[in-house]
Amino acid sequence: MTKLPEAIDAVKKTVTDTLNRALPGLNEMTAYLTQAMGKGARAKLLLTAAMDPEQNVPDSAIKAAAAIEILHMATLVHDDVIDAAPLRRGIETVQQKFGQKRAVICGDYLLCMSVSLLTTIEYTEDRKDYALVPRVSRALSHICRGEYLQYQNNGNMDLDMFTYLKIISGKTAALFYISASIGGLLGGEDEQNIRMLGRFGQYLGLVFQIIDDCKDYEFNEAAAQKSVGNDLVGGVVTLPLIMALRNEPALRRMAGDALSMKAVIPDLIQEVRRVGGPDGSRAVAQRYMAKANQALKGISGIKKESLTALLNKTMSAAAQF
Amino acid sequence: MTKLPEAIDAVKKTVTDTLNRALPGLNEMTAYLTQAMGKGARAKLLLTAAMDPEQNVPDSAIKAAAAIEILHMATLVHDDVIDAAPLRRGIETVQQKFGQKRAVICGDYLLCMSVSLLTTIEYTEDRKDYALVPRVSRALSHICRGEYLQYQNNGNMDLDMFTYLKIISGKTAALFYISASIGGLLGGEDEQNIRMLGRFGQYLGLVFQIIDDCKDYEFNEAAAQKSVGNDLVGGVVTLPLIMALRNEPALRRMAGDALSMKAVIPDLIQEVRRVGGPDGSRAVAQRYMAKANQALKGISGIKKESLTALLNKTMSAAAQF
Repeated sequence: MTKLPEAIDAVKKTVTDTLNRALPGLNEMTAYLTQAMGKGARAKLLLTAAMDPEQNVPDSAIKAAAAIEILHMATLVHDDVIDAAPLRRGIETVQQKFGQKRAVICGDYLLCMSVSLLTTIEYTEDRKDYALVPRVSRALSHICRGEYLQYQNNGNMDLDMFTYLKIISGKTAALFYISASIGGLLGGEDEQNIRMLGRFGQYLGLVFQIIDDCKDYEFNEAAAQKSVGNDLVGGVVTLPLIMALRNEPALRRMAGDALSMKAVIPDLIQEVRRVGGPDGSRAVAQRYMAKANQALKGISGIKKESLTALLNKTMSAAAQF
Repeated sequence: MTKLPEAIDAVKKTVTDTLNRALPGLNEMTAYLTQAMGKGARAKLLLTAAMDPEQNVPDSAIKAAAAIEILHMATLVHDDVIDAAPLRRGIETVQQKFGQKRAVICGDYLLCMSVSLLTTIEYTEDRKDYALVPRVSRALSHICRGEYLQYQNNGNMDLDMFTYLKIISGKTAALFYISASIGGLLGGEDEQNIRMLGRFGQYLGLVFQIIDDCKDYEFNEAAAQKSVGNDLVGGVVTLPLIMALRNEPALRRMAGDALSMKAVIPDLIQEVRRVGGPDGSRAVAQRYMAKANQALKGISGIKKESLTALLNKTMSAAAQF
């Protein structure tokens, strides 16, 4: 058992150790990734869902959180191959630094490491329903589907909100869902609470992605901690643009131009803001926030408070989460 | 329980059904792969290792064999991305037909399907040591390492036999190893026999790959069932060339030329044959064949006979296996 704040550090250490301990040759790439780890949103969610009233987190949850973060890294490495992205988290992507081919292998290998780590939990526990691997592989298959849908809709200015939500349900919310439900499972919650925690995670994931997509239109680059307008450059249509086109159909031509002419993007961002694209998107996120809160009905005490705090931080895009 | 010949068909059906039942969008790619399934060498090995004296194979082995074949497909799909290969098994590769980006997602998704299928075995059985997923993820990490080593040694005419064997131990023999040991496990063999079956699989995999690499130098295209000289075109140095360069160092210049000039390849193939590259390689394969036979010492009856038959077929490259 470890207290929550130390547990978060323990996850980082497990991830770093695992990545540094990779097979020769491959460790060059995996160790490189430890330079710029994310904020660990999924790990924090899992640990919080797993903690007891004294904020103690079981060791199994630390391992599981590390496995989820490594799985997340695997999907990012392959994503960056798919998007030919040069930068992530302020450093060169694996595909940029080591080449596309090696990045494919690196992502596969990270997947193995994640599954291997998960199975070290599975087979030391005495509960047969600790079936982490099938849960995680189901989540991963939804991620693949989300990625595929996003790829299929690249540059599609007619993308509707329903399809957008399907994309982000897969590519983002599936892993939040699984993090929260695994947390509940390892924290000893009953079936009903595990299900509701999963639902909370799912909605939190939607909020997380919608707010992240808003940043691409709202902030200057420093505040967004990524390059603004990037989604558009890559042909990725997100909710603020969908809402803006709904509010102002006349923007469609400018949006089409922005796909092929980078110079148009700053003007389009301005227009999307003016017609309320980000505001409308935040209103959608608010609805999911309400649903997320609703899902916590059966949870109480410090766990409920902490999960609510995570949700509020995500909604307010405090960028610390 | 199913008899061995029917079990082989049942594996094919399970693979086809699984690939056709993929999530919308992704099934377009996975179903495409059912058009040209391989010969199922790994599945046959697993089933044979699992059968009882009456040639009955447990249903769990059929599922596991299908999972291994799907995993193998996943690695091929990603391999073809890495090698930018246009054709495999007589049809366009996924990366050629659907594009590199979608092929990355397809490979990831096939991995999920394989793991999911494996877990449906794991959690219905009552033996905690039926730990298939960690075994398979370990094998997959060795495959990644083999692929990476091969990539690193692309075009390296100084590749030595030791490194070559390390490459094929990963990229090929690891999956043969795991197939044979999982077969033994699901067939109810004891720990000692499972270990020896795994060792048999490992050596069989080495023989399989060495003989396959010989075909690239020995046959005309029709007999090899793939385009001859392909490895060289892709910069992949295999044992026949290593043996030829050992026998005749003067060939090194021609080999270097062949890397950049396709026109030189037919002459090089001729020379590699003349100085005994394939013959020397077959002699190496013979040594592994002897080790494979040695590993079968504790196995008896029809299982031993059938495994020996698989080995002999592989060694004689009958291309039916």
